[in-house]
Amino acid sequence: MVTSVCWFLLREIENRIEADHPVPAPASTGEESEEDQQFLSIFQQIAGDQMEISANELKDVLNKVVSTYKDIHIEGFSRESCRSMIALMDMDGTGRLNLQEFRHLWNKIKQWQGIFKRYDFDYIGTISSYEMRNAINDAGFRLNNQLYDIVIIRYANENMNVDFDSFVSCLVRLEGMFRAFHAFDQCGDGTIRLNVLEWLQLTMYA
Amino acid sequence: MVTSVCWFLLREIENRIEADHPVPAPASTGEESEEDQQFLSIFQQIAGDQMEISANELKDVLNKVVSTYKDIHIEGFSRESCRSMIALMDMDGTGRLNLQEFRHLWNKIKQWQGIFKRYDFDYIGTISSYEMRNAINDAGFRLNNQLYDIVIIRYANENMNVDFDSFVSCLVRLEGMFRAFHAFDQCGDGTIRLNVLEWLQLTMYA
Repeated sequence: MVTSVCWFLLREIENRIEADHPVPAPASTGEESEEDQQFLSIFQQIAGDQMEISANELKDVLNKVVSTYKDIHIEGFSRESCRSMIALMDMDGTGRLNLQEFRHLWNKIKQWQGIFKRYDFDYIGTISSYEMRNAINDAGFRLNNQLYDIVIIRYANENMNVDFDSFVSCLVRLEGMFRAFHAFDQCGDGTIRLNVLEWLQLTMYA
Repeated sequence: MVTSVCWFLLREIENRIEADHPVPAPASTGEESEEDQQFLSIFQQIAGDQMEISANELKDVLNKVVSTYKDIHIEGFSRESCRSMIALMDMDGTGRLNLQEFRHLWNKIKQWQGIFKRYDFDYIGTISSYEMRNAINDAGFRLNNQLYDIVIIRYANENMNVDFDSFVSCLVRLEGMFRAFHAFDQCGDGTIRLNVLEWLQLTMYA
């Protein structure tokens, strides 16, 4: 559970564009649910002695866990969304997740899953583009209309619906991009200046 | 075939980071190969009266065409790489590709396929991380070691090999990001200044 929240507000012209940016979840308190134990066990089996997992292994572990869910219809995660998740959470630049990074990611996915479920009224595994706006909002991101439209064009299917894999991919990218902007906006004037190396570093590992 | 090239050079500290940026390919000259005709026919079947295709339809059409190839082993394109391709080529912001945009993309894919084939010596459908550097270079992008490492971490599998779908995803993102940087570096000093709206517009539709 996220116990504290640091806020950074990013304003733009007429609209308010911002992210409620949760700090990393604390390490386990020792009181673990059955799901947590199941998750740890699967992680250990897949990660082996290295105790780190690659994108493909992340895909396997996540899909194993969500396949057991009875109350939400999730088709499964794609390799690409798992790669994006690793890029977001990989703090030591190994391209793999250790247990702590994975646990942090897992907490996020559970939170996002709760939001998605709230809008997937009819249990078909997708939410509409209108619901997507509310879901993004619930996840802590305030965008303007232009950005909501961009997100829908990028992540919805041809029927303007968004599945859970795309929803997670979208939130992962939003969180990564808000975080990067915040890190570079050190004087807090709402703009960042980047050279090409910085630009490519930020955008190629995302 | 790309008939002319405009260059933009982007320099950084000790290393040279640049892209040989091809301008959009010209419209068909009327002399079409059998493959071009096959491609146009498939496009028309899938696009229907609208003559525009979505990411899923793009995936279908590309996978139909590459499945007929005898001289290269391609597993197929993922939905995610097709979405990225649409974001790169979609000049009118519809989230779909018209015939001209698709033809431009097709020319790129053929060019990238030729490069990939050159390095996939043993016809297993992947290239090594070392070959990936050369392949990126052949595609017109000069990165520094740091960026090559980032690209490998992001796009290679756990055996440090890159399949064609990931290779294309990488080049699509590189091209999009170089193009975006160039567009914002109007005074040509090698840096760009962005507010949060511009930052998210550039990075969320990619």
